[in-house]
Amino acid sequence: MVRVVILGQGYVASIFASGLEKIKAGKMEPYGVPLGDELPIKIRDVEIVGSYDVDASKVGKDLHDVVKAYDPDAPESLKGITIRKGIHLGSLRNLPLKAVGLDDEMTLSEAVEHLVEEWKELKPDVIVNVCTTEAFVPFESREELERAIAEDRKDRLTAVQVYAYAAARYAKEVGGAAFVNAIPTLIANDPAFVELARESNLVVFGDDGATGATPLTADVLSHLAQRNRKVLDIAQFNIGGNNDFLALTDKERNRSKEFTKSSVVKDLLGYDAPHYIKPTGFLEPLGDKKFIAMHIEYVSFNGAHDEIVITGRINDSPALAGLLVDLVRLGKMAVEKKAFGTVYEVNAFYMKNPGPKEKPNIPRIIAHEKVRMWAGLKPRWL
Amino acid sequence: MVRVVILGQGYVASIFASGLEKIKAGKMEPYGVPLGDELPIKIRDVEIVGSYDVDASKVGKDLHDVVKAYDPDAPESLKGITIRKGIHLGSLRNLPLKAVGLDDEMTLSEAVEHLVEEWKELKPDVIVNVCTTEAFVPFESREELERAIAEDRKDRLTAVQVYAYAAARYAKEVGGAAFVNAIPTLIANDPAFVELARESNLVVFGDDGATGATPLTADVLSHLAQRNRKVLDIAQFNIGGNNDFLALTDKERNRSKEFTKSSVVKDLLGYDAPHYIKPTGFLEPLGDKKFIAMHIEYVSFNGAHDEIVITGRINDSPALAGLLVDLVRLGKMAVEKKAFGTVYEVNAFYMKNPGPKEKPNIPRIIAHEKVRMWAGLKPRWL
Amino acid sequence: MVRVVILGQGYVASIFASGLEKIKAGKMEPYGVPLGDELPIKIRDVEIVGSYDVDASKVGKDLHDVVKAYDPDAPESLKGITIRKGIHLGSLRNLPLKAVGLDDEMTLSEAVEHLVEEWKELKPDVIVNVCTTEAFVPFESREELERAIAEDRKDRLTAVQVYAYAAARYAKEVGGAAFVNAIPTLIANDPAFVELARESNLVVFGDDGATGATPLTADVLSHLAQRNRKVLDIAQFNIGGNNDFLALTDKERNRSKEFTKSSVVKDLLGYDAPHYIKPTGFLEPLGDKKFIAMHIEYVSFNGAHDEIVITGRINDSPALAGLLVDLVRLGKMAVEKKAFGTVYEVNAFYMKNPGPKEKPNIPRIIAHEKVRMWAGLKPRWL
Amino acid sequence: MVRVVILGQGYVASIFASGLEKIKAGKMEPYGVPLGDELPIKIRDVEIVGSYDVDASKVGKDLHDVVKAYDPDAPESLKGITIRKGIHLGSLRNLPLKAVGLDDEMTLSEAVEHLVEEWKELKPDVIVNVCTTEAFVPFESREELERAIAEDRKDRLTAVQVYAYAAARYAKEVGGAAFVNAIPTLIANDPAFVELARESNLVVFGDDGATGATPLTADVLSHLAQRNRKVLDIAQFNIGGNNDFLALTDKERNRSKEFTKSSVVKDLLGYDAPHYIKPTGFLEPLGDKKFIAMHIEYVSFNGAHDEIVITGRINDSPALAGLLVDLVRLGKMAVEKKAFGTVYEVNAFYMKNPGPKEKPNIPRIIAHEKVRMWAGLKPRWL
Repeated sequence: MVRVVILGQGYVASIFASGLEKIKAGKMEPYGVPLGDELPIKIRDVEIVGSYDVDASKVGKDLHDVVKAYDPDAPESLKGITIRKGIHLGSLRNLPLKAVGLDDEMTLSEAVEHLVEEWKELKPDVIVNVCTTEAFVPFESREELERAIAEDRKDRLTAVQVYAYAAARYAKEVGGAAFVNAIPTLIANDPAFVELARESNLVVFGDDGATGATPLTADVLSHLAQRNRKVLDIAQFNIGGNNDFLALTDKERNRSKEFTKSSVVKDLLGYDAPHYIKPTGFLEPLGDKKFIAMHIEYVSFNGAHDEIVITGRINDSPALAGLLVDLVRLGKMAVEKKAFGTVYEVNAFYMKNPGPKEKPNIPRIIAHEKVRMWAGLKPRWL
Repeated sequence: MVRVVILGQGYVASIFASGLEKIKAGKMEPYGVPLGDELPIKIRDVEIVGSYDVDASKVGKDLHDVVKAYDPDAPESLKGITIRKGIHLGSLRNLPLKAVGLDDEMTLSEAVEHLVEEWKELKPDVIVNVCTTEAFVPFESREELERAIAEDRKDRLTAVQVYAYAAARYAKEVGGAAFVNAIPTLIANDPAFVELARESNLVVFGDDGATGATPLTADVLSHLAQRNRKVLDIAQFNIGGNNDFLALTDKERNRSKEFTKSSVVKDLLGYDAPHYIKPTGFLEPLGDKKFIAMHIEYVSFNGAHDEIVITGRINDSPALAGLLVDLVRLGKMAVEKKAFGTVYEVNAFYMKNPGPKEKPNIPRIIAHEKVRMWAGLKPRWL
Repeated sequence: MVRVVILGQGYVASIFASGLEKIKAGKMEPYGVPLGDELPIKIRDVEIVGSYDVDASKVGKDLHDVVKAYDPDAPESLKGITIRKGIHLGSLRNLPLKAVGLDDEMTLSEAVEHLVEEWKELKPDVIVNVCTTEAFVPFESREELERAIAEDRKDRLTAVQVYAYAAARYAKEVGGAAFVNAIPTLIANDPAFVELARESNLVVFGDDGATGATPLTADVLSHLAQRNRKVLDIAQFNIGGNNDFLALTDKERNRSKEFTKSSVVKDLLGYDAPHYIKPTGFLEPLGDKKFIAMHIEYVSFNGAHDEIVITGRINDSPALAGLLVDLVRLGKMAVEKKAFGTVYEVNAFYMKNPGPKEKPNIPRIIAHEKVRMWAGLKPRWL
Repeated sequence: MVRVVILGQGYVASIFASGLEKIKAGKMEPYGVPLGDELPIKIRDVEIVGSYDVDASKVGKDLHDVVKAYDPDAPESLKGITIRKGIHLGSLRNLPLKAVGLDDEMTLSEAVEHLVEEWKELKPDVIVNVCTTEAFVPFESREELERAIAEDRKDRLTAVQVYAYAAARYAKEVGGAAFVNAIPTLIANDPAFVELARESNLVVFGDDGATGATPLTADVLSHLAQRNRKVLDIAQFNIGGNNDFLALTDKERNRSKEFTKSSVVKDLLGYDAPHYIKPTGFLEPLGDKKFIAMHIEYVSFNGAHDEIVITGRINDSPALAGLLVDLVRLGKMAVEKKAFGTVYEVNAFYMKNPGPKEKPNIPRIIAHEKVRMWAGLKPRWL
């Protein structure tokens, strides 16, 4: 069994919860779950045991009620879990939501203590972070991180950083746990957190779940690189209508997203082709099904100029939710293997910004084979 | 040095010749040549020593003059090679061209003899076939093939089949040679030819150079397969204005093309998703820069439906011509390694329909790593 | 009140019936109905009084049951009309359906008599033809048409031609009626039928309802023409999964469609720019929501080359069904105005191939203003 | 003859000059010039007599040399005109260019005087403004405008506002002239300038030349509106690599552009469908050939949801330059007709933001017919 605690019961977490229960009940195929039911830990063994949020309209509600707002077909089996109060540290700033958090009532040290105590009751194997994208500054130094917590630096720390810190404390006490960071805040790419994790029996996967246009761009760029075509320029737009896009209209948050994605180009092509890759805007009626557009121009043999345009409508939340079904199981497996710190083989396929910091993006098609091998499965094509 | 003879001095062969000379002269980067100058045999070591065609307006002309019609910047270094008369067997049927061939003047056995004698003078290491797409029936049985030649069955054999037969005869006499089949006629996928090649010291690469939309489709489908997304349907159109598209308006030729491409879907997805993948039409002003359009619909996690559309303008001939710069060098390497018969590791990356017959399509990104390893190069990402 | 009889109770007619009833019941906005409720005859005044088909599985069934197969939300108000047996004359040939028709049991003259008698009971003001696309040869001469009926030439006539003939006979007897031909068979463009209609108090609208990519292409081409941009080439594909696309895989039917659409280019640009515009293929999972793709290349000022690509997913049947809600009301109005024969002002906006024969396509945006004025409405922008 | 003075000798003005001379010399067809040679004033009668700029590297240079940087095929006939120093008022701020202007050396009143004197020598019939997009605040009150000039308010006025003011002064002195404002600064939409123009014998055309994706969007939206389809959302991106896109990365300038374009949606649909329409970014290698992408979602009959995507590569400067060839001739015609103030019939087709202020956008296809009629030509389709 894999016991899961969710941080941020928004769109992604709700689709994750709903789809997971439908698959467990045999009502739905595990489409969108990369490793399907090939792993030694089966999908039916995943259990959500707790959930946290900071939206005042969610805290204290039953999980089933919250999920239902995102998926009218939410299964009844989600009943019985109450959404607990988490940490916000301003993460809902500029969103049309009222935020409530432990940090409104106590110091950060106390909040960490509070979370660790709750988790010791809930006994999660894996803690999944799918909070709203936040503006952040990485720590790099573990000492600075510890000091910021101790000194209650609410201006310096973000919700995710505090959650990750609490997860490390919890893992240390119980002997092992995993923290899956599916949003852009650098955790698996912040040496401070990786070091802390390694010494605390924590596995960290991250950062920023590899969904949307970016993994596809990655494979298309690899395709061009392998034919030695010279990429002249890359433009990539995406526009959506969910809360994540709304949050990204906030300049600072947008910048953190931008940072993540741009490294892909150089990693895969071997040179930094001029590119414009950013979330572009918010358009409410698009809802969770974003519109993407991509334009790539390159030089082929004998100086010929070619052009490719990719457009699409892609459901944002299910794409990430499907990955989480793998990630929680891989998290438990990593704990069993005592692979504390972070696991590049997992991150390289599942994350836009695969930690640790010094590691590059590689073509997803190859990363997929590597994670299969790491998990003890036969590669599919190698 | 790699001595090359060309069969079919059309658009692809002319761009190959022109681009090759420009790279050799240091006037152009080897963009579009997948392995660039990483191979032990360098691009500057490739030399075109002969060329054949069956278009009455080309036979007897200087190579430079013919290439110039396709590329006004054709280098002077192409001067001095005279286009020789090849075999047509009706391969220009329905095209607005006057065909002349050895088969108009002699039996097929005599034509084979004639070619082998010429090649013994020209001493090619590699014979590259880039004739016009033809309607054909594979042989499967080597005995039947030999009998068809002996009985002068001009109705049963196609130009490419006779060329490949002659190449085997030549290889046997000189101790080794390679035949690169870049068009759809099954050679590397016809057990009759593979067996013949193996016993004649001939290396065969084939079939149908992997250019255009199909390799990209392959990598996009692999991308979806690895996320366990359920593909509902695939539509792929392409329309162009060069002679190859004109030839494909001929029903029977079109069918041979269709056959090749469709296998991709099942090989990569693991199931035969409904698809419509065929060359669609001829539109003269598009010239060699075809327009492609692709639509893919799939199911993601929790039953979500996504859609991707890819469109593009792609130069047809340079895409294949760039691959030939690798293939002739890999051909020579294969002869040196005595890898007679066919080489799947090479075909899997460079060919739409990689021989031998029983072998599947695999994601190109992975095939690329395999051919690197076969060629003694370090894989790029594995 | 407008009493309507339907010929061909397939996808289009069923969506027409279903949507019409929903609008009448106030449950749906009249989106997709160009003139909405601006006409003097209101949507609530349209009544379906009879329906014909030749699919053995539909004849004798209740309209509500048939419509339900296409739209699960079919309103109950459709109950009580029984599908009657029509004429097929091979129009379902090559489709996976069993056809039954009056023409199986009697001569064409008898069948016409039979229909006229039934219509005299049903008292339609407007007869709407939305049969499956058929292969046909226009008559041009009225004498030849009359003779073909008289001589029971089942090989020469198509179902639509016999229906239109019967409509003229009916109109003559009752003093006035309208026949809306929404499929490619030439009726409003066949001088034989226009003359017959004029003398029989019949109004004919046709031919081929202007839906799908073609009207959009028309407006885009007009846009370019008005900027004096020189169009170099136009490629337009569309692929769908409904019965109409299946029918068009039949070569002969496809040709009739092709003929219709190609005239657009010359009419709007003033010259016949090279183009490839045809229904491209059948792909079952796309269902009624076809995929379209269009590529246009043109020269702008100072010799600059531009390119536009349009792709889309468009519901085929609702697009035409919405036009029918206008056309039946305009048909009744034309009868009241005694505009017998055909009405170009109506056809120019609603039809791909606007009759009469000698009349051109014009930009739809302008045609729209013209039909408004014909109907006594204020133009919107003129 | 139409004597033309250019303000802002950048990409657009240079392509205008180059293409104009090529057409005059019979070396090029007038593609991209909407009215071609149908107007009573012929293209060969247009003469460039002066040009102004504020880029230090252009002022004092020969026109031919400047044009050549944008079009290597610039005709020799452009020799002999020296670029004069104009006004900048910070309009090149944030661009990698050194600005020099009359406003560096004298008061605004003196600069106006200086320009009027020069124009009295050059004797332009039409002054064409194609400066870089600038951040601006409209005046609305003529009194405030006059006061700002008198008080030398260099912080309040922009270059275009001063140029337009000078044009009015010039027109008053010489009895008539035209000012074509092809950039977003509101002139024909600023009542202060329209009133001033009317009283000064000045014709003003404006504002913001209707090129790029917006006029196409306008016609596509009209197409949907005329079918009564309910537009759910519109997203439109465009990204380019010329100086105009670079200038728009500046937040304030971008906002002025945004303002212009958004009015289109409500004017054409009759309701303000949610939309995201803005210039999106700068990507240098795209050069003057921008990439556009547009996504429109709408409801058709019976509640069906359709989607259209338009992408394209469009040369930015030639599109506007071609319009200028008409506008200068129409400007002269308007002066002859004494149509002082502004002319909506002209603006409605040629401008994104057609003045006067209270006038709406209409479908371009209809606007085209209206301008034809205004110019005494037969409408094409009405």
